[in-house]
Amino acid sequence: MSDAKNREEGFAFMPKFDDRGLLTAVVVDSGSDAILMVAFMDEEALAATRRSGRAHFHSRSRGELWMKGESSGNVLNVDAILVDCDQDALILRCTPAGPTCHTGATSCFYRELDGDALRPVRT
Amino acid sequence: MSDAKNREEGFAFMPKFDDRGLLTAVVVDSGSDAILMVAFMDEEALAATRRSGRAHFHSRSRGELWMKGESSGNVLNVDAILVDCDQDALILRCTPAGPTCHTGATSCFYRELDGDALRPVRT
Repeated sequence: MSDAKNREEGFAFMPKFDDRGLLTAVVVDSGSDAILMVAFMDEEALAATRRSGRAHFHSRSRGELWMKGESSGNVLNVDAILVDCDQDALILRCTPAGPTCHTGATSCFYRELDGDALRPVRT
Repeated sequence: MSDAKNREEGFAFMPKFDDRGLLTAVVVDSGSDAILMVAFMDEEALAATRRSGRAHFHSRSRGELWMKGESSGNVLNVDAILVDCDQDALILRCTPAGPTCHTGATSCFYRELDGDALRPVRT
């Protein structure tokens, strides 16, 4: 089986990092199924997440590893990791210790498009 | 208000494309709340999506615009677009016309990590 076919149909974990060495990670609240945030993971962040059970990411702007909640205390405890067909994106199902967004919102997705402007998401 | 603050707290849509000109887009089924796929949108894909009401993306591998379902017929009709705090990621809430994954699966996320290997997601 080719690598591409194996990656899609097989049961080996073969993460496909992009040309910057990153996977896309979507964080979902295991309790509510709400999407909390989207971030990127390099090999180091993925290893740290799997080792510690807490979500770690790679900051594209700072070029470094960070653990979500390292300063706020609002860590994300990882309950499950789902993988997509071509293994370049992950869903992290997490139990959050507090609000996920640095603005204090539960989720980073607190606004939606309304014509050409934004409005608060109706919950 | 600074651009960064306005982007987070304001109600102007100011998408922040990355250094490759891309936003991350997470597609969610409006009916089931399941995450169906993750892809990238450049300015052209975002404009085509907003104009047509059907999800369009930018293929990083082919370097071109594509409409989801253009060959399979399994289009994604967009019901709402949510924006994250720094406006570099979107959630597209969609009504899918058929299975979203090119493998025939409803969602691209049909496997989860189980130790060092993968197993089918329990649904």
